[in-house]
Amino acid sequence: MMKHTIPSDIEIAQAAKPLPIQEIAKGLDIPEEALEPYGKYKGKVSLDVLKRLERQKDGKVVLVTAINPTPAGEGKSTVTVGLGQALNRIGKQAIVALREPSLGPSMGMKGGAAGGGYSQVIPMEDINLHFTGDIHSITAAHNLLAAVIDNHLHQGNALDIDPRRIIWKRVLDLNDRALRNIVIGLGGPAHGIPREDGFDITVASEIMAILCLALDLEDLKARLSRMVVAYNRQHVPIFVSDLGVEGALTVLLKDALHPNLVQTLENTPAFVHGGPFANIAHGCNSIVATKMATKLGDYVVTEAGFGADLGAEKFLDIKMRAGAMKPSAVVIVATIRALKMHGGLQKDQLQEKNLEALHKGMSNLEKHIETIEAFGLPYVVAINRFISDSEAELSFLQEWCEARGVTPALTNVWEEGGKGGEALAHAVVQVIEQKENHFKPLYELEESIEDKITEIVKKVYGGQGVEFSSLAAKQLKEIEQQGWGALPVCMAKTQYSLSDDPKKLGRPKDFVIHVRELRPRIGAGFIVALTGDILTMPGLPKLPAALQMDISSEGVISGLF
Amino acid sequence: MMKHTIPSDIEIAQAAKPLPIQEIAKGLDIPEEALEPYGKYKGKVSLDVLKRLERQKDGKVVLVTAINPTPAGEGKSTVTVGLGQALNRIGKQAIVALREPSLGPSMGMKGGAAGGGYSQVIPMEDINLHFTGDIHSITAAHNLLAAVIDNHLHQGNALDIDPRRIIWKRVLDLNDRALRNIVIGLGGPAHGIPREDGFDITVASEIMAILCLALDLEDLKARLSRMVVAYNRQHVPIFVSDLGVEGALTVLLKDALHPNLVQTLENTPAFVHGGPFANIAHGCNSIVATKMATKLGDYVVTEAGFGADLGAEKFLDIKMRAGAMKPSAVVIVATIRALKMHGGLQKDQLQEKNLEALHKGMSNLEKHIETIEAFGLPYVVAINRFISDSEAELSFLQEWCEARGVTPALTNVWEEGGKGGEALAHAVVQVIEQKENHFKPLYELEESIEDKITEIVKKVYGGQGVEFSSLAAKQLKEIEQQGWGALPVCMAKTQYSLSDDPKKLGRPKDFVIHVRELRPRIGAGFIVALTGDILTMPGLPKLPAALQMDISSEGVISGLF
Repeated sequence: MMKHTIPSDIEIAQAAKPLPIQEIAKGLDIPEEALEPYGKYKGKVSLDVLKRLERQKDGKVVLVTAINPTPAGEGKSTVTVGLGQALNRIGKQAIVALREPSLGPSMGMKGGAAGGGYSQVIPMEDINLHFTGDIHSITAAHNLLAAVIDNHLHQGNALDIDPRRIIWKRVLDLNDRALRNIVIGLGGPAHGIPREDGFDITVASEIMAILCLALDLEDLKARLSRMVVAYNRQHVPIFVSDLGVEGALTVLLKDALHPNLVQTLENTPAFVHGGPFANIAHGCNSIVATKMATKLGDYVVTEAGFGADLGAEKFLDIKMRAGAMKPSAVVIVATIRALKMHGGLQKDQLQEKNLEALHKGMSNLEKHIETIEAFGLPYVVAINRFISDSEAELSFLQEWCEARGVTPALTNVWEEGGKGGEALAHAVVQVIEQKENHFKPLYELEESIEDKITEIVKKVYGGQGVEFSSLAAKQLKEIEQQGWGALPVCMAKTQYSLSDDPKKLGRPKDFVIHVRELRPRIGAGFIVALTGDILTMPGLPKLPAALQMDISSEGVISGLF
Repeated sequence: MMKHTIPSDIEIAQAAKPLPIQEIAKGLDIPEEALEPYGKYKGKVSLDVLKRLERQKDGKVVLVTAINPTPAGEGKSTVTVGLGQALNRIGKQAIVALREPSLGPSMGMKGGAAGGGYSQVIPMEDINLHFTGDIHSITAAHNLLAAVIDNHLHQGNALDIDPRRIIWKRVLDLNDRALRNIVIGLGGPAHGIPREDGFDITVASEIMAILCLALDLEDLKARLSRMVVAYNRQHVPIFVSDLGVEGALTVLLKDALHPNLVQTLENTPAFVHGGPFANIAHGCNSIVATKMATKLGDYVVTEAGFGADLGAEKFLDIKMRAGAMKPSAVVIVATIRALKMHGGLQKDQLQEKNLEALHKGMSNLEKHIETIEAFGLPYVVAINRFISDSEAELSFLQEWCEARGVTPALTNVWEEGGKGGEALAHAVVQVIEQKENHFKPLYELEESIEDKITEIVKKVYGGQGVEFSSLAAKQLKEIEQQGWGALPVCMAKTQYSLSDDPKKLGRPKDFVIHVRELRPRIGAGFIVALTGDILTMPGLPKLPAALQMDISSEGVISGLF
């Protein structure tokens, strides 16, 4: 990729010629009355479409995942968008299904989640800012519930909630470390009951997970009412239904549940809906959007957050199970640069050819390949090209793959859009048509929570075992006692390493995973296992991205990635 | 009004037959490219329209205000919508301009702010929930700024901000008393600098005020950059521009600045844009929406929050001055029921005729009439009818008005829509055409802050004077020293009484107003004076309205007012 010769992402996006969203919808046979336009190029599609097409044959779901991310960048979203465009170029009807970005990292340091170069979803500014308001709706619903809990304490506490055992925190869609640990209710009797509290980032909210896993409005309300918010003084869980606020929460989320339809730079339809992070949540876009895409397209290209150890594992063990869906193939994205970082190089050493570092770093890719094989799925390795890649390095990678019977495909979707993804598109179609698909989740739901976590750690992370803190060990027992043991597990772990130590790159061995705390998410339908030092509220860097942003008096935005 | 014989507000709204928003826009000659639809019945209108019509003659601005609100209800928004509909019925081209409701009171106890009965703006559910996301954008921008401040402290505090003198709090669009006084930054060195903080409701944010007072995108950014967020250890103010985040804040607010176009039940165009409360903020919809309405319509009917002591005073002294606009007439809304409460009755005593209480309660209306006269404006008193009103009471009121040369008009817009407002519409047109307009703000900007407050207290509230707390007295000096003395004043006071004691109804005399604290809002361009016990973050009642809300699996909402 020649980043220096083509315009910036935002310049490309601003120069795009999008079709009116009505035309994109028409191309998918979405009836006019089922589309709610949000401006000229965004729309929400009614879930009625899903109901109407219930018996329609499903399109093929292609999951795009990656090696563990490094500062070198892998371009997973870019490959997802580029592959969707490429499939359409080679005559397949494809739809892209992505997550919607959180404002927190956009204002912090991560950059947009709308792809890049000539493989972006547009309007990228809207998508990266407030979009259609889904995440704001979740923030509002989440915090209304928190306010109702504190009001319940203040107004007499009829449910006998133990103020020390309220597990429902507050959320904001921001990176704000000063809100991680707070004390609320100060100032005297008119201002609530003092207690410890804290804020998570909205994308870590159980409500975000629920929005992404709910099958319809009814299921959304049922899941919301099952959320555990606290325990009473007898340690009995208090559900949202005990507070009676599930109706209001559902009302606040009624529009957010409808999938958002946009398009790529090449007018490929794209659903961008739901946005949990994959390190602190389950990391996949919504089931309703993915399902709708399978009913409207022959191929659905979707991604899951971060590396295959996080996003893909949860996509396959949680999302596919909840949606009763089956993926057709997986694309594992890697770059020469990132692999060399896994082989021990620093970011400023990546310009030079280094076959030794590349060779060493392949171990990271190798582990993720083994993981996808363990799920029984056909896959392709996509090598996302950079200008600094040497021929020798590319040949090495190609040979490495071929020696293992792995299908590799070079892509150049950042610079060339769909054209740069045609080889990958052909490879994907080929593995789907020719390879056998023995998809099966990694673990059975009947296993204990402890066994499920151990299985993920051993088979997906390649670790030796799990160490539970005394708190987590106690919680394991409580969870089984409550009858929640048959739920799947949502691992919260650093994205940078297969282990829970972000500094261990490549393919670390002989490590154990430290489970610090378990959080029951009964509405979402999983148990979160917090490992290592993973935080559910990020902080801003020394120079936040926000300081670079500006807008002219004519409304032209700059500095947004 | 016969509340028991006609359907509920939400049922009426759900049964409405709205026109597509494109047709409403077309009727106003808004070019197609200037309308961004948000769903089928809501749209944002580009500020380009305002620029294009700069030299167009202005329509007449009619301000709807009221007596001090009581639990009996006055129906100010309902009269505003009904008057707009009525003006159209009698052949005038009228546009309604309202504030957008905050979620806090909707989930608490206040009820919707979209009018009522057959005088509502629609889609009422959307308007009362997330609408077009403006308030959420303000929440996001406000809290991004807060996060940047705490991040600045955490990352070395180059500006030497005194953590004890940060005046920028955080906000949520909720009633949540437990967040009024909090301690943040706990948990050790990785989690920020511990300090006292608190949350206000979003509609009290200076950013909300700025959005409502900004003339265009450039002015918005300039105002945002002037906001004072803290003081350094030498007591020098720290502005947003010192932090360099004004660009990002403006980016987050770029869509929110565009006025929202909707319609009434009778298809009268309505701008619903900006929503500061009138008790803790300036209480008026946006200048850009009101100005746009004056360019597109012959009559603009707009309201300001609560009674004339709060909303109207700030509309006339702050909004009209900032927008260089001049109102044509004022409508003062009263009801027999509410006047009887001002005369000493309880809510359960209002069914019976009581001329004595009515006579006594007239003093409240009388004071507001004097206030509007003091501003030199033509006005009409609108008597909003209820079924319980007796003929004797109505005659008394009529005669009382006529004896004072006041123009009264009976309205029944709740039950009859525009038809029930025709008498009022004729009366408004008549006073505009026949009475002289000597509009002049109450005070000159050159007066000191102390004098301005005193003038408002004496001339608008009818009080004897002002008592400043020692904190406020110190702040008065600091404000003059900083050179902010020439700004107007934004009074924060209880809406229930002319005094700062919510229990003193009618027309209290011999009272002083207690100014507890002054808050410089340099970006908004005013100094907030907090009086009495007024809170900038409301609490939820024992049984919040949220507990009544529900939604069916088909998506039909119930319990939303």
